[in-house]
Amino acid sequence: MSDLRQQALDYHALPKPGKISVEITTSAETADDLSLAYSPGVAEPVREIAANPDDVYKYTAKGNLVAVITNGSAILGLGNLGPLASKPVMEGKALLFKRFANLDSIDIEVKHRTPEEFINTVANIADTFGGINLEDIKAPECFVIEKELKHRCSIPVFHDDQHGTAIVTAAGMLNALDIQGKKIEEVKIVCMGAGAAAIACMELLIQCGALREKIYMLDRKGVIHTRRDDINEYKQRFANNTDQRTLQDVINGADVFVGVSGPDVLSAEDVKLMAPNPVIFACSNPDPEIKPEVAHAVRDDLIMATGRSDYPNQVNNVLCFPFIFRGALDARASEINEEMKVAAVNAIRAIAKEPVPEAVLKASGATSLEFGKGYIIPKPMDPRLLKKVAGAVARAAVATGVAQIELADDYMA
Amino acid sequence: MSDLRQQALDYHALPKPGKISVEITTSAETADDLSLAYSPGVAEPVREIAANPDDVYKYTAKGNLVAVITNGSAILGLGNLGPLASKPVMEGKALLFKRFANLDSIDIEVKHRTPEEFINTVANIADTFGGINLEDIKAPECFVIEKELKHRCSIPVFHDDQHGTAIVTAAGMLNALDIQGKKIEEVKIVCMGAGAAAIACMELLIQCGALREKIYMLDRKGVIHTRRDDINEYKQRFANNTDQRTLQDVINGADVFVGVSGPDVLSAEDVKLMAPNPVIFACSNPDPEIKPEVAHAVRDDLIMATGRSDYPNQVNNVLCFPFIFRGALDARASEINEEMKVAAVNAIRAIAKEPVPEAVLKASGATSLEFGKGYIIPKPMDPRLLKKVAGAVARAAVATGVAQIELADDYMA
Repeated sequence: MSDLRQQALDYHALPKPGKISVEITTSAETADDLSLAYSPGVAEPVREIAANPDDVYKYTAKGNLVAVITNGSAILGLGNLGPLASKPVMEGKALLFKRFANLDSIDIEVKHRTPEEFINTVANIADTFGGINLEDIKAPECFVIEKELKHRCSIPVFHDDQHGTAIVTAAGMLNALDIQGKKIEEVKIVCMGAGAAAIACMELLIQCGALREKIYMLDRKGVIHTRRDDINEYKQRFANNTDQRTLQDVINGADVFVGVSGPDVLSAEDVKLMAPNPVIFACSNPDPEIKPEVAHAVRDDLIMATGRSDYPNQVNNVLCFPFIFRGALDARASEINEEMKVAAVNAIRAIAKEPVPEAVLKASGATSLEFGKGYIIPKPMDPRLLKKVAGAVARAAVATGVAQIELADDYMA
Repeated sequence: MSDLRQQALDYHALPKPGKISVEITTSAETADDLSLAYSPGVAEPVREIAANPDDVYKYTAKGNLVAVITNGSAILGLGNLGPLASKPVMEGKALLFKRFANLDSIDIEVKHRTPEEFINTVANIADTFGGINLEDIKAPECFVIEKELKHRCSIPVFHDDQHGTAIVTAAGMLNALDIQGKKIEEVKIVCMGAGAAAIACMELLIQCGALREKIYMLDRKGVIHTRRDDINEYKQRFANNTDQRTLQDVINGADVFVGVSGPDVLSAEDVKLMAPNPVIFACSNPDPEIKPEVAHAVRDDLIMATGRSDYPNQVNNVLCFPFIFRGALDARASEINEEMKVAAVNAIRAIAKEPVPEAVLKASGATSLEFGKGYIIPKPMDPRLLKKVAGAVARAAVATGVAQIELADDYMA
């Protein structure tokens, strides 16, 4: 374990600090080159953009540039360690954008006193970028921050901890329910956790057909119900008109358990109480709400997913965020709307149902992967994700009228 | 001319928009790589930085990252065209940082209402970067913006339009006065223009020995004198207790003319009135305050510099800004102070007095370059600048106690 720690530190420190750099994409050797790149030549694109602001996409890197922006208030599972300590994570996210979708991405760490100050700061620099990925911002501030920034910015703003998680969770869940022979409209859902990711997951499941009254959300104090007077407006939307108060109460007869909370909160006894053919998503990382071996030991009719790569069915945001931004930026979408999220869900679902390419098998160390209880969502390194997800998202942007340009007929074909 | 215009536009648009990209500097191919670059491995450097904030320089790209930040209020000579239109210039500046000093540099365009809002926005994101290069911000706001940001940020903040211009101007001017056999303490200086660059140039010349009372600064309304009540506090510092009111009044007997204003404001008749062995820096770009051929036609004892590459003695900020940041960041200086600026001036001066390498001769298309009236400052592409200027600046940072780390003995040796 200490070896892995040193390996991670070395990876970040050697041969030089950090994981990303800024590079020149044009010819910049001779004095003539530089007279085009800078004064006097650069005055020409400046004049064009001043006359026609849209030309900024023609003459600058804006259209391919995603800012990964945080205040460091909810870094991974580590908590509020502040902007400076979050920098390795944000650089890592930028690396993933490049690695998976060839997007240029730069991290911005923001210090601030009030949520309003964060919002103003980000809105003031937003013109620099083609899109903004909000990251590791704690609830409930993240809700008003995202809402206000979506309102004030004319580029896509997307809080990945909410919506990336929700999209991948929904894709896996809908596939799992297919396999279990259940309809999303009919299932009883228990959601352990009431933070940003939990709320976004439940909202998107509702978008996909789940009934709000069949969802039982729990925070640290137990079931969120209509008699509680200690909950914020975001949890309030999930207040269930029920007399049940504890996890043990609501897990009884539940078809679905979604955990976005912490380790080992679901017991084998709880799992025994679930309805036939249940689905458990235990997404707490690195330690899930229940270990798969513990759950499978008491139920053989179970489908289970976690956030970990060493178990089947990994719920991993990287299945979504690089590609939803790729599609949104390629369509020059003014926002990422609900239809684009649902398009991403459906594209991810469809990939899991298709035969797996040899290279993906090899990379994942499996001898075969077939749609079923042990393979409900694609593997993170599946190269089909780029075309399918970005393509579906960009076409949904066009269909819903938020795309600012037309797509080529063969876009991501 | 239209051809050059199209060439500049094509340079920015093809093969893809813009001039810079963000790239991955680590291995990021396999799932194992990604588990170090992102979760779970990335938690290790996060913990280290949370415990010891200085480690952010060890595990992230911060220490080599310079933000080029503007509000687009004074773009080149084009005026206040706003943040969006300034983006090609800022990307160009980022390109120059990389090209000359291997610094990673990213542009940030800020929209804002008040100078305070600009200051807050930049201060809030400053932790992201190793240094901040302010660019193309109009006077007089640029003065309070730079002053406040220097105060609020623990990293170097440098308004290049002021100090880069001033450093290169001072280097050239002191060398020119050497050649003309004049002492900086004794010369009468006329400064045409009273904007950010003009004021910074005069302040640095004073730092280098010039006497404030021997400086005559002019704005659009003429000489800035002690009876004027229409001038801001920054111009006020140059109010001269004189009865002279016009350029023609003050140019009489002047040793030095520095133009940071606009085209063709100095006539051949004016030049005739100057003292013997005068020095003229006509830095307005692309059209200087007087064309060199016009000035030389009436004075053969003249030394002349412009901002243009097609005349001798080009005053070009690129002689300074990449290297002053390289030195400041290598010493992890908390600021760029006056001593570091003067060190840059002296390093640039010294290079001009040394024999010119063959490669520089070739690149500049000259058959010989010898320190003298036609060669008072180094050529922009001179590879000696990196070592000499960065080395001098970093050592000055150490000597003045603003360096946060020790330099290797052989640093830039």
